[in-house]
Amino acid sequence: MAAADRLNQTSDILSQSMKKSDSTASIVTAEVPYKVAVVGSGNWGTTIAKVVAENCKENPQLFQERVDMWVFEEKIDGVPLTKIINTKHQNVKYLPNIDLPENLVANPDLIETTKDADIIVFNVPHQFLGRLTHQMKGHIKPTARAISCLKGFEVGAKGVQLLSDYITEELGIECGALSGANLAPEVAKEHWSETTVAYHIPKDFRGEGKDVDHRVLKKLFHRPYFHVNVIDDVAGISIAGALKNIVALACGFVTGLGWGSNAAAAIQRVGLGEIIKFGRMFFPESKVETYYQESAGVADLITTCSGGRNVRVATEMAKTGKSAEQVEKEILNGQSAQGLITCKEVHQWLEACGHIDDFPLFEAVYQITYNGVPMEKLPSMIEELGLEEDKE
Amino acid sequence: MAAADRLNQTSDILSQSMKKSDSTASIVTAEVPYKVAVVGSGNWGTTIAKVVAENCKENPQLFQERVDMWVFEEKIDGVPLTKIINTKHQNVKYLPNIDLPENLVANPDLIETTKDADIIVFNVPHQFLGRLTHQMKGHIKPTARAISCLKGFEVGAKGVQLLSDYITEELGIECGALSGANLAPEVAKEHWSETTVAYHIPKDFRGEGKDVDHRVLKKLFHRPYFHVNVIDDVAGISIAGALKNIVALACGFVTGLGWGSNAAAAIQRVGLGEIIKFGRMFFPESKVETYYQESAGVADLITTCSGGRNVRVATEMAKTGKSAEQVEKEILNGQSAQGLITCKEVHQWLEACGHIDDFPLFEAVYQITYNGVPMEKLPSMIEELGLEEDKE
Repeated sequence: MAAADRLNQTSDILSQSMKKSDSTASIVTAEVPYKVAVVGSGNWGTTIAKVVAENCKENPQLFQERVDMWVFEEKIDGVPLTKIINTKHQNVKYLPNIDLPENLVANPDLIETTKDADIIVFNVPHQFLGRLTHQMKGHIKPTARAISCLKGFEVGAKGVQLLSDYITEELGIECGALSGANLAPEVAKEHWSETTVAYHIPKDFRGEGKDVDHRVLKKLFHRPYFHVNVIDDVAGISIAGALKNIVALACGFVTGLGWGSNAAAAIQRVGLGEIIKFGRMFFPESKVETYYQESAGVADLITTCSGGRNVRVATEMAKTGKSAEQVEKEILNGQSAQGLITCKEVHQWLEACGHIDDFPLFEAVYQITYNGVPMEKLPSMIEELGLEEDKE
Repeated sequence: MAAADRLNQTSDILSQSMKKSDSTASIVTAEVPYKVAVVGSGNWGTTIAKVVAENCKENPQLFQERVDMWVFEEKIDGVPLTKIINTKHQNVKYLPNIDLPENLVANPDLIETTKDADIIVFNVPHQFLGRLTHQMKGHIKPTARAISCLKGFEVGAKGVQLLSDYITEELGIECGALSGANLAPEVAKEHWSETTVAYHIPKDFRGEGKDVDHRVLKKLFHRPYFHVNVIDDVAGISIAGALKNIVALACGFVTGLGWGSNAAAAIQRVGLGEIIKFGRMFFPESKVETYYQESAGVADLITTCSGGRNVRVATEMAKTGKSAEQVEKEILNGQSAQGLITCKEVHQWLEACGHIDDFPLFEAVYQITYNGVPMEKLPSMIEELGLEEDKE
């Protein structure tokens, strides 16, 4: 076939395919359009609220147009932030210079924001979650469903708890997760990216058109610039989203040592292997494919290891020999590098259950960060404790 | 357990583990130590020859000390390159400023280099392979074994042929492969990296101590700075090593368009998926784990997409709107970007067997490179032709 024919054929396939997805799309409706609320308005919270509000406006058969976003009220030059957002349609503090849809309404009242919502999207810093769910308890619809955009998990005496499970326990509503290779400013600028939404259809599912399912979630989050794949594996994407930050610290160490791209890639390879192993060990229901085939898996790992707070802190530790704590203070302006917290929690959990030796990279990052083990030992720690022995 | 105890325990595990691997190591011997030869002396050829020569010197029970490296003879300021290498112990032309072991001997005579070799390591540009094997035919030991460090495959009427299979066919000797996240200058400087060696034990295996097996290959290539995992899956690492270059072009496109890290990570995720699919479709004996768990798989993909010739050419195409051919001429000094050749070969093969629609990213790269399809269409081409439909 000549190249030109080939190209025409490709166009044909493209348009057929688009028609197909259009016709599929048109049959997703709700008997009563769903009311959507977003809890959180940081840069990622506002970005996701923008995505969701755009889709709610475009799909009146499925969603109510108005999307409320809960904003922790503060004053900017004497004017409440919610007022600025609702008049200027920009979140000048956390997502400046990005126009927000007018159907996105900033609301300082958490209860008012969420009480009528059928779908609640959580997107707040981890440490605020407990207080917010506590306030919401008893004030939301018992039929509501939720999606958590938070990264990380809780590690306690009972083991590792997913934040989506925490929300389900606290509020009594089914909760899925959204995670992916999504640096917020790039998504806000509508640069193409992908994400993964995971949601497990609950036993009390009320039926198509009456309740949230995978097609509804795709309609809620998918944009031409933000490609969504919806899967079942909530545990898989949550585990990957949390553990990648430990791997990013290790990447920062080898980068700071000047070891180059080969070493950084090796760290990511070993890290992906340990993430998969962790998932299979503690969440056997999670699927291996989620880790190597989803945006929330390998792609998010790659993005996170290419930059961001964890890499910066670890690189600086390597270059200066300063402690994690000191570097965090000096370069993060009071913010924290999540990997430092996660690697400690993971270490404590693995120690409690006797599995430290199965995760030599995670353990090496912990020992380097908290016990002064020289980071030059990273390769030998990985090699000697490592995956290769398992294979033999 | 207190942190200090934990650290001590880690040290204990480390030293026990090292003892174990030392004792395992000491039992790898050969009745008659193997003679090793390297064919090729570019920057990667010389680097691998350095690795191999270091190990041959350290393991006299297993390898003859002297390693011959075939060098395409040329004169540098009137002095033959082989003479410079053998006196100065540096390859001043292709790997300057790196000291080579004195037991590595540069040899301008291909037959002399390889005729007594038990293990022949091929590391030359793809286009020279045919001529060299033609010359060697009938002059090597029939019991010899080979390892190919070449990337890429041959696509012809019969389909996709691995270069290791080509060597086996031409010379009648079993041939494995070495591939990994290995930018040569970093390995040469002994910065830590990993690689994968794949070798399939042939039916005429002559027994331990008499023939090459996985432990011999680990001894030959593993260094403290170059960690080797030896597996069976020759097809898997070869496929990954070739196809990654197409993915790197796509990464270059989105980078040149200024789409940022999310987009580059998305391309790598989709690319990994298509590499796995290609492997399973045409080499069903290859293992999925090879692609996502080996250095030759996901790690090499990450390194290759972080820089190198393919990314540079594609980025420049995106920024200037110039053709691949023109950009190659302008910025590569007569070298070529392998991805441009591979994407054409893969397109022709997929077209011939009717599988183009299964590989939307590979096809998009081809259409952008050779048929002027605008690269901004990349996301929609991936989406509409893509993996998501397979899952439904």
